[in-house]
Amino acid sequence: MADRRPPPPRRGFSSDNASGVHPEVLAMVAEANVGHAPSYGTDSWTARAEELLSAKFGAGSQSFLVFNGTGANVSALAAALRPYQAVVCSADAHLHTDECGAPARFTGSTVIPVPAERGLLTLERLETALPPAGRGEHQVVPAVLSLTNASELGTVYRPEQVAELAAWAHQRGLLVHMDGARLANAAVSTGSSLAEVSTAAGVDVLSFGGTKNGLLFGEAVVFAGTAGGVAAARHYRHTRKQATQLASKMRFLSAQFVALLSEGLWRRNALAANTAATYLAAGLGTVPGIDIVHPVHANTVFATMPPAMTARLADEFSFHTWDPAAGTVRFVCSFDTGTTDIDSLITTARALTTA
Amino acid sequence: MADRRPPPPRRGFSSDNASGVHPEVLAMVAEANVGHAPSYGTDSWTARAEELLSAKFGAGSQSFLVFNGTGANVSALAAALRPYQAVVCSADAHLHTDECGAPARFTGSTVIPVPAERGLLTLERLETALPPAGRGEHQVVPAVLSLTNASELGTVYRPEQVAELAAWAHQRGLLVHMDGARLANAAVSTGSSLAEVSTAAGVDVLSFGGTKNGLLFGEAVVFAGTAGGVAAARHYRHTRKQATQLASKMRFLSAQFVALLSEGLWRRNALAANTAATYLAAGLGTVPGIDIVHPVHANTVFATMPPAMTARLADEFSFHTWDPAAGTVRFVCSFDTGTTDIDSLITTARALTTA
Amino acid sequence: MADRRPPPPRRGFSSDNASGVHPEVLAMVAEANVGHAPSYGTDSWTARAEELLSAKFGAGSQSFLVFNGTGANVSALAAALRPYQAVVCSADAHLHTDECGAPARFTGSTVIPVPAERGLLTLERLETALPPAGRGEHQVVPAVLSLTNASELGTVYRPEQVAELAAWAHQRGLLVHMDGARLANAAVSTGSSLAEVSTAAGVDVLSFGGTKNGLLFGEAVVFAGTAGGVAAARHYRHTRKQATQLASKMRFLSAQFVALLSEGLWRRNALAANTAATYLAAGLGTVPGIDIVHPVHANTVFATMPPAMTARLADEFSFHTWDPAAGTVRFVCSFDTGTTDIDSLITTARALTTA
Amino acid sequence: MADRRPPPPRRGFSSDNASGVHPEVLAMVAEANVGHAPSYGTDSWTARAEELLSAKFGAGSQSFLVFNGTGANVSALAAALRPYQAVVCSADAHLHTDECGAPARFTGSTVIPVPAERGLLTLERLETALPPAGRGEHQVVPAVLSLTNASELGTVYRPEQVAELAAWAHQRGLLVHMDGARLANAAVSTGSSLAEVSTAAGVDVLSFGGTKNGLLFGEAVVFAGTAGGVAAARHYRHTRKQATQLASKMRFLSAQFVALLSEGLWRRNALAANTAATYLAAGLGTVPGIDIVHPVHANTVFATMPPAMTARLADEFSFHTWDPAAGTVRFVCSFDTGTTDIDSLITTARALTTA
Repeated sequence: MADRRPPPPRRGFSSDNASGVHPEVLAMVAEANVGHAPSYGTDSWTARAEELLSAKFGAGSQSFLVFNGTGANVSALAAALRPYQAVVCSADAHLHTDECGAPARFTGSTVIPVPAERGLLTLERLETALPPAGRGEHQVVPAVLSLTNASELGTVYRPEQVAELAAWAHQRGLLVHMDGARLANAAVSTGSSLAEVSTAAGVDVLSFGGTKNGLLFGEAVVFAGTAGGVAAARHYRHTRKQATQLASKMRFLSAQFVALLSEGLWRRNALAANTAATYLAAGLGTVPGIDIVHPVHANTVFATMPPAMTARLADEFSFHTWDPAAGTVRFVCSFDTGTTDIDSLITTARALTTA
Repeated sequence: MADRRPPPPRRGFSSDNASGVHPEVLAMVAEANVGHAPSYGTDSWTARAEELLSAKFGAGSQSFLVFNGTGANVSALAAALRPYQAVVCSADAHLHTDECGAPARFTGSTVIPVPAERGLLTLERLETALPPAGRGEHQVVPAVLSLTNASELGTVYRPEQVAELAAWAHQRGLLVHMDGARLANAAVSTGSSLAEVSTAAGVDVLSFGGTKNGLLFGEAVVFAGTAGGVAAARHYRHTRKQATQLASKMRFLSAQFVALLSEGLWRRNALAANTAATYLAAGLGTVPGIDIVHPVHANTVFATMPPAMTARLADEFSFHTWDPAAGTVRFVCSFDTGTTDIDSLITTARALTTA
Repeated sequence: MADRRPPPPRRGFSSDNASGVHPEVLAMVAEANVGHAPSYGTDSWTARAEELLSAKFGAGSQSFLVFNGTGANVSALAAALRPYQAVVCSADAHLHTDECGAPARFTGSTVIPVPAERGLLTLERLETALPPAGRGEHQVVPAVLSLTNASELGTVYRPEQVAELAAWAHQRGLLVHMDGARLANAAVSTGSSLAEVSTAAGVDVLSFGGTKNGLLFGEAVVFAGTAGGVAAARHYRHTRKQATQLASKMRFLSAQFVALLSEGLWRRNALAANTAATYLAAGLGTVPGIDIVHPVHANTVFATMPPAMTARLADEFSFHTWDPAAGTVRFVCSFDTGTTDIDSLITTARALTTA
Repeated sequence: MADRRPPPPRRGFSSDNASGVHPEVLAMVAEANVGHAPSYGTDSWTARAEELLSAKFGAGSQSFLVFNGTGANVSALAAALRPYQAVVCSADAHLHTDECGAPARFTGSTVIPVPAERGLLTLERLETALPPAGRGEHQVVPAVLSLTNASELGTVYRPEQVAELAAWAHQRGLLVHMDGARLANAAVSTGSSLAEVSTAAGVDVLSFGGTKNGLLFGEAVVFAGTAGGVAAARHYRHTRKQATQLASKMRFLSAQFVALLSEGLWRRNALAANTAATYLAAGLGTVPGIDIVHPVHANTVFATMPPAMTARLADEFSFHTWDPAAGTVRFVCSFDTGTTDIDSLITTARALTTA
């Protein structure tokens, strides 16, 4: 059998989707693997997962499980938008930069990227960047504001910031969507509950990410009990199916969320990843020639370093060169990132400075 | 912890996606869960899975893994079709009846359903049903013929039947697609290899189903080394991403296919399911009032029975009432369906006749 | 200049879009061609046309002008449908057979064709053909019933037939759409007003055709004052623009409708065409070997004749061979079809029988 | 009849689609209105128009007529793009700012707006703004560069500028599209032929606008005889139909282009409009408080003036307030704009300064 066993790759910093599955999650999948179960979400594991999600995201919230983050964004936006409407998001938003135009292709709608500050939108930025309305049918109609929390640059919206932006959006008739691929990291970072950084602050529909937080794969699309959330949820079951995101053996997505939510695993994993990132940033910051370029709110660290150091460090460690021109690199910590992984990275980097 | 453990449901006959995960598959997932791995398919498990798939489907074939069957059909057809073109399929085809219009929505193309014989298309049916061409831009242009093997009615195209239909299609400039959600059952049923009932018989692009054959979830989209297959494959990586079917932790899809393909598990599972269905049909056929309505080529049995029997049998066993008006019910066997499950069903049915 | 003047082709029977523009229409276009006017429909000619249309189609109705019939159908359906919903229509419907899949491509929705009786849907046909509901998100949701009046086979729904079908649709939560490319012919045929065969009988949204009735080009999309009509109209201005059907020099579409509606020209033209068709059918019916195959309610005549006669008649007259296999041909009369055109056709046909 | 005759609005400066139809165009429409003609473009007027267009745009070019500019852009781009690809254009491009997302909705593709200099793209801007490639299927693939000539800001690309940008695009595998809603104005402005500012300079597919240059409505979509042009043209007939831009009474679009092209009317009209704009800019520039803000290459003049002057001028003349914040207004001249219209505007403006 050895022939089909690749050598275990060591832990790196390329992304939190390079890490594996938390043992408690795999154990729960095995526990769910007993006999037969109704398919497409009518099983008891799914009932349990939905119950746990509703408890987290508040009265009247409705939750649905999907396979991945792009599927969560695409299907959630499709349920909330008409094709002549637009979603407003940060210019750094994953749905704008990393989903190959999937949201626009599937929804027919337009994505309006707005320059943000270190990954975070502000009222000023929105007011400045949004096209003036009143040109009638010649222009698309902004109908959804999408916030990524934690953001693609490792920064986090605090509950009051989410609330301020959501109020602005609601006043203008926009729904609020949150790309929560790293929602757990945002909650832990702000000492909040999952709801406090999302639904309780005015978010109408969001994705709650599991994949980057220790699942095989799996995200939850959550509609808040708000008027806008309830209206969008009415279209969601069919939209999820059309978006190819309905799992037949749903119990195996649900069991993972049961593991994530029933014993605080979501928080333990996010806390481990955030703590590792803080430790990494503190250490890297002491290395001559390396500068930390964004506040480290969650589990991601952006730094600049000399090209030569980047090249030689890459021989031994996996990380992402974010902007070659600017010499910016990205290190992402996962639930299983250890201090030895980090110490080894820092030691090597320091050695390169004295080389 | 008991509160979150639902009682294990017994094995039923509602669908082969009601069954769970084969132990060898779960074991391989656990084996792949070591350290970190590159995401999105650049890991060694995926390399191994693609190697095994290429070996099965022939020189020049290219394989890509996706989450589910609808995603496999939608993304494969989108890579092969322009929006003004059409896919021709059986009126019973899953892509026509069970995918909520997802293929048409995502591809912009039209689905042309053709009445089939017990789930199988024939040259006669195709010649009769296809709209005459020559009306120029006023009508859509058939560009893909889609065959489901094993079919939705439990019947199977033999290699020579696939070859005949593929030749007909290629003569008219159509590519040939195969919905192989149950391809393993078709191969076992005809004593063929996976290629003999698909690529070797002229199929240009297909899905090879894993979900219904013992995986958590996972299907392979395979492009043959034909001119048409190679041309369609050129668009596939981006199309899979746009179709929200690109998994970040790809190694966990790949490891399942390594388990399925490296020790003949795909064949063992399909053989078990087909054998169970044959045994079930033989037994049911002896029960007064029950008639088997289609040849049982694979793992699915269609039967007619009196409404009263259907109702009372449903109190104890899970199965699908296919056509209430006609009194048709569907029983599907899985890799783990046992003779005790079947004997118990038959005994109960027979008891109902004497009641 | 002669070099650019093609010889005037004589009047034929191929289609009512082969005829030209009624002199009163061209005169009104010239009358509107004075100075400048606001674009995109804010001009006084458009206000006048909308006023005339509202007067025809009833209180609360809203009308919008577009370029052509496919654009009218596509944009009206897009305003009324979500992508997971479906439009139910006759298998002979233009939107199903002659629009190259445009409605499905633009709306993302599915077209469900139902076999009809001589082009007309009936309750029995609808009840039989519609897929049973209750399969949840696995199947599309019928949300619009589309009727073509006059139908593609030259037959007409009388007001009470429209009302019966509309009541059936509304009971099931479907909106009613009418493809009225030949609505004027239907109204004249039944001695009704334009509203009596459409909005007054329960139609929520329709197209009122001008192109086939003497305009250069131009159709009106009309939303009734019903709850369903008003809801769909809310999305229409943006949908018309996205469907590329918003004319910048709108006054020239509007002036044509002013000509059509302000002096009963719509009725005079339709009456002339219908009368010509009745005269044509009566004459053709007396020719040995020719049979009229559908009731002639409007301006279209379907007949069967020997292939040899069809071939030789086609040397001198333009008409459409509808079904070569069945020997069916179609003759369409326009507002300008004269008795000499018809007599000449009949005389020639009779001569061919004695040849 | 008076009741339906609105008072003729005087000529204004709001847009060149506020002007009417040139008498020679209307005369040709009347000339084409004789008897019947084959529909959908198989008539002799269309043959003549296509012949004239091919003569203008070079050997191997293919031309197709559509209703309006948005339809021309949407259908041309749809023929050239796959849904995972993108069109790169100026941030001022009509297809980005004024078509309500129609190109993205119909093609499924993404529009990438690039900041331009006074409406014109430059190599530097393109190099800077384009996202770095090499991120595989996670990002869309730029496949078409779209240039508007004359631009939305009244500036014009000279033939050598088009050639330089086209060479850049072709080197990167992009096709070149030109939005030529005002192509005639660009040709006249640069003393070039229609081909010299488009196909002869490397444009693969373009729209040649008629509506803003004296037609009722009508644009030509032209595919150059280049490899890219020929490949895109293969899909065009069906794409035009799906885009709802196929006219049934095609002869009336074709006759307008025969009028536009056979006696140099296109050039006479564009010359009149450009000359008027030059005269207008010269005059306005002498009015204290008014500044001309862009070079006046074609028929559009942008100026800044004090809000009070703008408000009072708007009481008597129609023009477009482009940017209220910046106090920028737009004046567009048409083929029929007279010196009296302009003198009256300037006199009034000057009077307001002394008021």
